[in-house]
Amino acid sequence: MPQNVTQKLISAHLARGRMRAGEAIAIRIDQTLTQDATGTLVMLALEGIGLDRISTELSVQYVDHNLLQVDNLNADDHLFLESACRRFGLWYSPAGSGISHVVHMQHFGKPGKSMLGADSHTPAAGALGMLAIGVGGLDVALAMSGEPFAVTMPKVFGVRLAGKLPDWVSAKDVILEMLRRHGVAGGVGKVIEYFGPGLKSLSAMDRHVIANMGAELGATTTVFPSDERTRDFLRANGREHDWLQLAADRGCSYDEEDSIDLSKLEPLIATPSSPGNVVKVSEVAGEPIYQAYVGSSANPGWRDFAVAAEIVRGSHVPPGVSFDVNPTSRETLEALIADGRLGALVAAGARVHQTGCNGCIGMGQAPAVGRNSLRTTPRNFPGRSGTEEDAVFLCSPETAAASALAGQITDPRTIAKACPELNEPTRLTANEQLLEAPLAAEQARKVQLIKGPNIRSLPQFDPLPDRLAVPILLKMNDDVSTDEILPAGARVLPYRSNIQKISDFAFERIDRSYVERARSARSGHAVIAGRNYGQGSSREHAAVAPRNMGLRLVLAKSFARIHRQNLVNYGILPLTFVNEVDYDRLQKGDVLRVDNLRRTLESGEDVTFECRGPVRTRHGLTASQIEVILAGGVINWRRTHSHAAA
Amino acid sequence: MPQNVTQKLISAHLARGRMRAGEAIAIRIDQTLTQDATGTLVMLALEGIGLDRISTELSVQYVDHNLLQVDNLNADDHLFLESACRRFGLWYSPAGSGISHVVHMQHFGKPGKSMLGADSHTPAAGALGMLAIGVGGLDVALAMSGEPFAVTMPKVFGVRLAGKLPDWVSAKDVILEMLRRHGVAGGVGKVIEYFGPGLKSLSAMDRHVIANMGAELGATTTVFPSDERTRDFLRANGREHDWLQLAADRGCSYDEEDSIDLSKLEPLIATPSSPGNVVKVSEVAGEPIYQAYVGSSANPGWRDFAVAAEIVRGSHVPPGVSFDVNPTSRETLEALIADGRLGALVAAGARVHQTGCNGCIGMGQAPAVGRNSLRTTPRNFPGRSGTEEDAVFLCSPETAAASALAGQITDPRTIAKACPELNEPTRLTANEQLLEAPLAAEQARKVQLIKGPNIRSLPQFDPLPDRLAVPILLKMNDDVSTDEILPAGARVLPYRSNIQKISDFAFERIDRSYVERARSARSGHAVIAGRNYGQGSSREHAAVAPRNMGLRLVLAKSFARIHRQNLVNYGILPLTFVNEVDYDRLQKGDVLRVDNLRRTLESGEDVTFECRGPVRTRHGLTASQIEVILAGGVINWRRTHSHAAA
Repeated sequence: MPQNVTQKLISAHLARGRMRAGEAIAIRIDQTLTQDATGTLVMLALEGIGLDRISTELSVQYVDHNLLQVDNLNADDHLFLESACRRFGLWYSPAGSGISHVVHMQHFGKPGKSMLGADSHTPAAGALGMLAIGVGGLDVALAMSGEPFAVTMPKVFGVRLAGKLPDWVSAKDVILEMLRRHGVAGGVGKVIEYFGPGLKSLSAMDRHVIANMGAELGATTTVFPSDERTRDFLRANGREHDWLQLAADRGCSYDEEDSIDLSKLEPLIATPSSPGNVVKVSEVAGEPIYQAYVGSSANPGWRDFAVAAEIVRGSHVPPGVSFDVNPTSRETLEALIADGRLGALVAAGARVHQTGCNGCIGMGQAPAVGRNSLRTTPRNFPGRSGTEEDAVFLCSPETAAASALAGQITDPRTIAKACPELNEPTRLTANEQLLEAPLAAEQARKVQLIKGPNIRSLPQFDPLPDRLAVPILLKMNDDVSTDEILPAGARVLPYRSNIQKISDFAFERIDRSYVERARSARSGHAVIAGRNYGQGSSREHAAVAPRNMGLRLVLAKSFARIHRQNLVNYGILPLTFVNEVDYDRLQKGDVLRVDNLRRTLESGEDVTFECRGPVRTRHGLTASQIEVILAGGVINWRRTHSHAAA
Repeated sequence: MPQNVTQKLISAHLARGRMRAGEAIAIRIDQTLTQDATGTLVMLALEGIGLDRISTELSVQYVDHNLLQVDNLNADDHLFLESACRRFGLWYSPAGSGISHVVHMQHFGKPGKSMLGADSHTPAAGALGMLAIGVGGLDVALAMSGEPFAVTMPKVFGVRLAGKLPDWVSAKDVILEMLRRHGVAGGVGKVIEYFGPGLKSLSAMDRHVIANMGAELGATTTVFPSDERTRDFLRANGREHDWLQLAADRGCSYDEEDSIDLSKLEPLIATPSSPGNVVKVSEVAGEPIYQAYVGSSANPGWRDFAVAAEIVRGSHVPPGVSFDVNPTSRETLEALIADGRLGALVAAGARVHQTGCNGCIGMGQAPAVGRNSLRTTPRNFPGRSGTEEDAVFLCSPETAAASALAGQITDPRTIAKACPELNEPTRLTANEQLLEAPLAAEQARKVQLIKGPNIRSLPQFDPLPDRLAVPILLKMNDDVSTDEILPAGARVLPYRSNIQKISDFAFERIDRSYVERARSARSGHAVIAGRNYGQGSSREHAAVAPRNMGLRLVLAKSFARIHRQNLVNYGILPLTFVNEVDYDRLQKGDVLRVDNLRRTLESGEDVTFECRGPVRTRHGLTASQIEVILAGGVINWRRTHSHAAA
């Protein structure tokens, strides 16, 4: 049967299951990507698993998020990550090398490979014909240990591109058009696969822009074929040998289809505060701006900066406009210096920031209150810029640069300049000496992890006991968020790599006596909650910190999806009420008792507690989730099980 | 009588007093410099004074300190400062233009002029033959309003330079030699004036290095003559017309003298954690380093970066070394891009940061705990880097770059390269279009100040009443620091431009009930303290916040000098006990009563309170300090008095 590119990629990596949309499958993972904000917990998990050396073909740890270093914590994290790379056999890309997705594409991405990344924009690697999925840290740790990645087989959403982009319209406008049509949930449960004659006018970095922001459609990932443009890119980066052709079979089909005539697109812009609020730039032209921002993994390529440079060359940004330029990789920066385009940007008034993610993830460059900020970044959720009352627009570098000069939102087609003709450099420097290659296994075994004062090994958790008698320490309402379970913020986040310490903040916003009472309840405790428990941020600390305080089970009316999996991963039982009247009946201080718990779960049955009468609960866990919980969490489970990828 | 350069500069600006060391004088001020960390309070003071337009020849507001923008506050401050410049007639140098001292020298500094700056490194302008003094914000505000600056006539410390620096030794080693010889208090009460044949080998930017770090000697300021090298610099910056010759008269004398044979110097380094801990680099060579940092106002010139670039060109910094490069001005950055040297730095592994002060003032780039950081910055006080347990060394760019490549402290004379031959560019771009010139007075009057949600006008304070009956709300011990009076830190500093709000934190560390009790004491209150009250940071908020809560007088055994003046400036009476037994006798809650207070002060007499018997106190205030306190602070005083500079 003829296959599309997605099917080819998945079938080449299928470890378990059948390739039918909606069925459970598992995929062998060739490569992993972690960045510093997620990487420390991943490396602590590898230590917890007792891993000797990674089993993936290639894993890379990037440092691109926490670059501001206002105290020792980020620097300490970087040293820890570097030592963990040396210990476990990863590549290490130090601060200054660039944004993970960009550097990975330049140095490591290979058509036909699968990748998991602990970063939601991991799908950018689909630009090279990879199957690249963004997941949580523990999933990446498991993949490094050789475990296939379990996922529901997504639908494949084929998007046919025809024609060629007009002057002043670029790849960002393509993905904004997708967001305009399909919204921020339009890709959920789907892989988006681009095909058609329009592809040949899109460079690999153009495709990166589109694949990267596929995350904003909610897609599992985005996939491009690997063709001559892919080969051009790899050649320019000195890696033509890594190229292979990857194309959909003639006559293949897609679960859904759409098509875009590139020649009909015009400059688009997402207005505050969702990437889905897309309108034509011309509809909001004239709005005054405070900031124009070029950079991030959503406009990472040389051309994205070069086009901005040509637009502003010889002019000056007016008073009151902050024109922020964030080079995306060392190689991009070198190319822009060498061809004089960085000079043109600086002479026009750009503030050039260090290579990295920077303001895209709220690390600097926050705008003034209520002032419009135009960014080429992928997201404009409220407050993501760092400014709570922000007004962030997402657009192409052409729109950002034209607007910077005018001091107001400007359709680049209206400026008094010819559209710059740009030819991608055929040869970029590939400054690989500055990336640290993995050590040989023998050397690696001698490496000690370097742990600054705020980095501690993960606590060891015991397996689930067969008999529980646990007091209910909290009774919570509906919609408790992970921010309430474990707050973020400058007082708490410094302890992100020190679970013992960060646990002191667990449930602080709900009940300040929780921590002390949890310490007294020596054989563990339970909490009960209403609907949608654990909504919000996917922060794993909201599971591991209460677990560290002795939390054994959460009994709720319903759970938010990601937090429920995080509970499982850390060995906490997520249960729902069979009879919600029990929620009303149970009180803080009541003790939930159960015998034969392990056997009950192993047999797949539901669990009934005794607490002044029976309390019937449901778990809905898969067999492998039950295995994990019985083991006391995924780290214990992995430590004691050889991996299933035979 | 033949004069040295310092005497020429002072006599040309003398408004009051006689030019004899130790006597009170006042100096007319031609120019002022403020940066964003100090500027907001200065601009609020101008608003408080009711100033229409500045009276200085030239005042410039720079934005170089708070560039990280992790929330709206810094951006809001920048907009406020820009609006204040438009309103009051200042130049505005926006974020991205560079470090105040460097930009000022490139665009505005003029031989023969006087300048006050709200930044301790203001004396850097002495490199151009200016008399430039660093002071507190209110002093700068007064200078802008036309008030001469009152100061004690300093001694003049003449330093004769002979010979020429050897290869691998540069201006930083000259000032480090001064610090080695004279220590961090060696310049207190003195102007350091360099003269002699060695000057001709030092460029204006070399002199800037030496003048800048004169602050580390504790000097009032540093002065260089204006000569052909000064002219070269001004010519390269398109300002030869601003040059005038300024030289010491033959036969002039100095209060003290020293001499340095430049040819005998070798690479020096200040070890942690004082700029006075100077040793030869060779004595600490081999120590492993975490960081090498090139930039800051203490190594600001094109050559300081160019020499680092030539040292690292073609090599790569080893794993584990953060090589941080901080361009100091837009023009420096443009020159380094154009001549390929920025490219060489980046290719060697540099992290290039935005133009500004950055890590020099703890805004990013903090090192890992306990790891050695080599910096070309002026200061290495404990924790200044942002890392509490830091280990910062101060050195030349040659030493920093050589050490970056070796991964350990390295005497640059030992590397396998010839010393780079560098010729200063004879023409720098002067990108003045990106600095905002003052508006014409008529336009300026229409400008509204732009105040973000955390910027509020200064509260209005009433004059000192004639009769006081104030309860003692706090009885404090010796050595209370301004950090205890008003803490810094992320919880408090965001309110730096909102006195009403920041007052809620006054004395929080000493007594959490203070604020509430102060609110209840409607006719004001007093506090008493032991010795050395108000030590530590010169933060003015430690005076204005308690004043806003109603503090009328501080009765202490003794005061720290700067805080005492800050109390005066905000209208709080600083008094000392005549009999220290009264300190033991007085208790929290006691009420201090006095009548005829204004008349007593006006007559210069000491003040005796009644509180279960007489409490005799001393003030030691000058007539003008008394005027200020009677008015309710310097802003009230200035608002109601025409300035004395006739």
